[in-house]
Amino acid sequence: MIFQWFMSENKTGEFLKKYLDYQNQNLPVGNPDSLYEPARYILNLGGKKIRPLLCILGYDLFSEDTETAFPLALASEVFHNFTLVHDDIMDNASLRRGEKTVHVKWDVNQAILTGDTMLVDAVNRLIKLNTTPDLRINILYEFTTMADEVCRGQQLDVEFAQKKVVSEEEYLEMIRLKTSVLLGFCLKSGALLGGASETDAQILYEAGIQQGIAFQIMDDLLDVFGESEFGKVRGGDILENKKTLLMLHLLNHADRNDVQEIYKWFELREPEHEKIRFFTELFRKYDSDAYVRNVMMEKFNEADLLLNDLRKSRDFTALDGLFTSLKSRQI
Amino acid sequence: MIFQWFMSENKTGEFLKKYLDYQNQNLPVGNPDSLYEPARYILNLGGKKIRPLLCILGYDLFSEDTETAFPLALASEVFHNFTLVHDDIMDNASLRRGEKTVHVKWDVNQAILTGDTMLVDAVNRLIKLNTTPDLRINILYEFTTMADEVCRGQQLDVEFAQKKVVSEEEYLEMIRLKTSVLLGFCLKSGALLGGASETDAQILYEAGIQQGIAFQIMDDLLDVFGESEFGKVRGGDILENKKTLLMLHLLNHADRNDVQEIYKWFELREPEHEKIRFFTELFRKYDSDAYVRNVMMEKFNEADLLLNDLRKSRDFTALDGLFTSLKSRQI
Repeated sequence: MIFQWFMSENKTGEFLKKYLDYQNQNLPVGNPDSLYEPARYILNLGGKKIRPLLCILGYDLFSEDTETAFPLALASEVFHNFTLVHDDIMDNASLRRGEKTVHVKWDVNQAILTGDTMLVDAVNRLIKLNTTPDLRINILYEFTTMADEVCRGQQLDVEFAQKKVVSEEEYLEMIRLKTSVLLGFCLKSGALLGGASETDAQILYEAGIQQGIAFQIMDDLLDVFGESEFGKVRGGDILENKKTLLMLHLLNHADRNDVQEIYKWFELREPEHEKIRFFTELFRKYDSDAYVRNVMMEKFNEADLLLNDLRKSRDFTALDGLFTSLKSRQI
Repeated sequence: MIFQWFMSENKTGEFLKKYLDYQNQNLPVGNPDSLYEPARYILNLGGKKIRPLLCILGYDLFSEDTETAFPLALASEVFHNFTLVHDDIMDNASLRRGEKTVHVKWDVNQAILTGDTMLVDAVNRLIKLNTTPDLRINILYEFTTMADEVCRGQQLDVEFAQKKVVSEEEYLEMIRLKTSVLLGFCLKSGALLGGASETDAQILYEAGIQQGIAFQIMDDLLDVFGESEFGKVRGGDILENKKTLLMLHLLNHADRNDVQEIYKWFELREPEHEKIRFFTELFRKYDSDAYVRNVMMEKFNEADLLLNDLRKSRDFTALDGLFTSLKSRQI
């Protein structure tokens, strides 16, 4: 993904190059360095840099000199990576972007403590944003509201794993909190920093939320129907009995016999290949994939609709490019 | 300790009563409540409320209407309790103030996530302080600087446990970071919120640092020579081979035979009673206790000296009362 932007001679590619230079020169450092090294490690693992780009492109809608948005972009990236470090402990995940997770490469204690420092680091970057104290307070308030919601989403995610029944509404609220509000924050805070009105910034926030939910649903689809990606197990959600929208639809529509079979498979993890094939076939049998694709498209459309008015006065070429590129992943 | 203040009809007792009412009415809540319940649990375990009182008394030096300082006081208390929740995981501690620690009563994942929420909660309270955006930014910056230092102190503490040689200077720097900077922050931010000049607030900060170091050294002494307290194991530092100032002095002064014995005991945890007696006798033999008491008194004196000028224009009766009460613990 990143290389695709690098290769392209468009504005976003330029922004990304400059931002990555900025990030490399402003990584967390301190004494003792052993506290900050794991933070640099995870920040250097790559990733698509969607959150920094959303901050920058949100800013770019309203102002030039996009470099003013770089500290905000990096704060969002540091915060995102803090959540990865702590979530990977909770999910017992050993790989992240194809490399060892922080609590595996170091240990759980180090991952907890470095994660804490990263959260503090993100706040610190926001405090020092190059704008008025009023706007900094405003953006900080958006940030803590969002950060609290992300914790609530993670709590729901953990609790859903133990619950027998989760409604579609509950699932959508969980992914809104766990992943979408951060994307909304990036767009909104970028726009606010660029001088957007509260109204315009809020529209971008809402659109970001809808797009975030759509992308999460797309991730769920890709996990089952996509090509295997480096560092990601295809069918991983199936193996872990994750209550994705696909699974919720299936559970609501499968006949008695199939439901019995499903619960039998929930007790088993192996043979992996067979378990994945069993669920994939059922998803197709009950048109769960078509249904979920439909929900995803609705969310993308809602986002488009929200932006209709703003498009008249602002140039969305770069943002549209980013979203099109993200949407073009094969499902 | 708390009851001592309640019983006394002085200003501090009044502040504490009002503050506790405020805290009880403003505890962390949210949805799902399961995320916030462990936060309320640890905040309700008691404790001496030194940090809130330092915020309030720092404010009281410069302004009346001390209730303005309550959100700051609660932010400091929430932050302090966040560090307890995460440190207890890292230290594998099962008891806190005589009750189960959060990761024992719930589990490690819950303790990580609720701790994260508490850190966000503390920042959120500071953002909303009832003062100018400029001063809020100023206090927030003091806060993130302090919070980063507290993480660095915890990192050093963990690393010292594995190190063979720690110098006295390194130990003092570790406790400055791990425990004192928060006390300094409480006094300074309280004073700033009350309208103190940066200079006066900084003097209070420095005095808070010295007092914080002195109190930590006092805790180390109490752990060996004090009366057993509810929820605290007397001699706990000895059993865990903690490199307190007492131990560092002993290691630097013991003769070859005693050093050999010391390293033998480092390999053993039992019999506990004998291990504690062995070290207690050596501390006395080499006058380590007298030396450490002396360092502690020096720090208290430095704090006094720093405050000399400020005493001429401000009424320190309440703050002196708090410090005298803390100092009067038997060692």
